[in-house]
Formats: sequence, structure tokens, C-alpha cells
Amino acid sequence: MRRVHPIETESYRILRGLVDLSRLGPLSRAVAERIIHASADLEYAESLALDETALEAGLEALRRGSPVITDVRMVAAGITGRQALCFVSDRRARELSERLGITRSAAGFRVAAEEVGAGAVWVVGNAPTALFELLKLEVSPALVIGLPVGFVGAAESKDALIESRLPCLANRGPKGGSAVAAAALNALIYYGEE
Amino acid sequence: MRRVHPIETESYRILRGLVDLSRLGPLSRAVAERIIHASADLEYAESLALDETALEAGLEALRRGSPVITDVRMVAAGITGRQALCFVSDRRARELSERLGITRSAAGFRVAAEEVGAGAVWVVGNAPTALFELLKLEVSPALVIGLPVGFVGAAESKDALIESRLPCLANRGPKGGSAVAAAALNALIYYGEE
Repeated sequence: MRRVHPIETESYRILRGLVDLSRLGPLSRAVAERIIHASADLEYAESLALDETALEAGLEALRRGSPVITDVRMVAAGITGRQALCFVSDRRARELSERLGITRSAAGFRVAAEEVGAGAVWVVGNAPTALFELLKLEVSPALVIGLPVGFVGAAESKDALIESRLPCLANRGPKGGSAVAAAALNALIYYGEE
Repeated sequence: MRRVHPIETESYRILRGLVDLSRLGPLSRAVAERIIHASADLEYAESLALDETALEAGLEALRRGSPVITDVRMVAAGITGRQALCFVSDRRARELSERLGITRSAAGFRVAAEEVGAGAVWVVGNAPTALFELLKLEVSPALVIGLPVGFVGAAESKDALIESRLPCLANRGPKGGSAVAAAALNALIYYGEE
């Protein structure tokens, strides 16, 4: 069982007074609440694209020990109680990035696709280019947490993810980020363990 | 020189169209722009507490190689091109945390205070408790980047930092976070290197 710090309990009490997420399914609510807890940004209550079935698939994948792959190291560092794989600094990703003129994060996902099989959980907290790359790779993910951030391509990459029909969690608009993406995954890791 | 990716250039072009920060001093502007670039959250243009003199002190400290200490590993992971110290997982921090009933991040700062001398740069991206602890320690920081996030104590801890008269960067209200704190420090690291 995870020991929940009193500060976290109080934070959840406050946020439930600020925004009502009781309409959501249990996993959608857990994810939305942890994202708002981690960002203090109530906008996510409206902008998240939540799919209970997709989150269930992600939870099952985590419980059977499927690998978790992140686009950047910062997302991996924010995931608690579980090792996540990130190939952005891998030598092969560097070479691929330079040879093909793609970003390091996108190249890291190409390398990851060769390393892990179907049913992994993919987490994008930074790079729209990595998310666009993932949509081209045929990796049969259990779940894609697509939360890149920024003014260039982030909203478009998340829209493309939502339209891809892959099992996913995403956010509409430019917001997202490493902390938010890690929070979404942590919500699944913690689910039922409190 | 840092090689700026065309996506970053485009992102800065877009954000300068969305918000005018030209009134700010050069370091304040660099920090505010990188925070907005990293969060896609325009609110920071209004809520950041920016002090050009404090940021200059931080920049000088970085340039003379002063240590950078972070409250959580995720902030350290987001800092690019520079090693940051984080004692949250240090054995001594664990022991101190259990013995005194303080958070692990607060205990990590106590350990850090014994390890580093005056003139360090302290970065808080997560834990209000770590920032409150820092305000009690007499560490003579060159700069405190105080950007903890959340509904419990984060706003209060940042207000206390602003009132402390320590050289600081902070944000008014509950928002902040690891990605934003790392972005603030990265803005100083990159300053003048493009």
C-alpha cells in the first residue's frame, strides 16, 4: 500500500471543492485529479480527453509488468515506484536523429519501437515530434499518454492522437508537459493502492 | 554556443505574438519567456515575481560554477547542460525525515545545507515544505528559484520567499512545478549562449 502524505490528502480535498469530477469514470477521475493536483491548473478539468476503456487497458498493462517508455528523461524521473525506459540519450537515437534530421525524442521512440513489443505504455510529456513519430510506428500500444506541451505542434499532435483511435489519454490545446504526463501515469500506478 | 532548434525559434515567435514581455529587463524576460514556452501558460506573464538584480546574481553564480540544488529529482532531470544536486533520496535525508517528521524534500535541503556553502542556486519545483525549510536555513543563496506547485502551502511558501528578501524568482498563486522551475534555471544557463 502507498502511504499518502497528509498534504496530498488535503490537496485532494481542496481540489474537489474547486472542481467537480464525480461525473467521470473511476480511472478518468483518478487521472484528472492527479493532473490537477500536480499542476494546480483547473483548466484540465475541461480540456482532457479521457477514455475510461483506454485507461483500463493501460492499468492492465502496468499490472502485468509491461514496459513504460517516455519521450524525455524528465518524464521518467517523475514516474514513481516504477522504472521507465527513455532512449533519448541512446547512441542509436543520436545517430538516427542526425542521419534522418528528426528530433532526438522522435528518434528515441524509433529505437524504443525496436526494443519493446506490443502492449507497452508510451508517455509523451514534451515533444510533439515524438508523438507524431509514434503515430507512424506500428507498436500496438496498450495506452498512449500524449501530453506534449507548447505552441508548435503540441495541440496538433494531440488532436492527431485522439483521431488515431489508439487507446489514449490526451489534452486539447497547447498545455501538457513532463510533470503532467508523469502525474497521469502515476495516477494509474497508484490506483487501488491507497 | 547552444544550437537552437527551429521548433524553439518558432515557439518563441508565437509566444511573443501572444504576450508582450518587452517591458522586462533582459534576464527577467528570458526567464518569463522560457517558462511560458515550457508551460504554454500565459498566466505566468502576470503572476511571476521577477527581480532583475536577483537573476543577475544567479547568473553570476552559475558562471562561476556554484552548485545548483533541487528539491526533487525531476527538476534536476529537466536542467540541461549542467549537473544539479538533489538529496531527496539520500540516506541521511530519509533518516532525518523519519526522525523529525518533516518531508523528504525538506530533509534533503537540510542535508544539502551541510554539503554546500554560501552562494549556491537553490531550485524548488515541487515541495512547499522544502521552500519553507530553506527559509529557515541560513545558506546565503545566490538565488532561490521558488516555484513549488499545489493547493496546500505552495502560494504561501512563495509569498514567504518574496517577503524574505532573499534574492529570488517566484510565482504568485498555486502554479509552478518541476518543468517550470527547470525552465527558469535553463533560461539562465542559456542566457547569452545563443
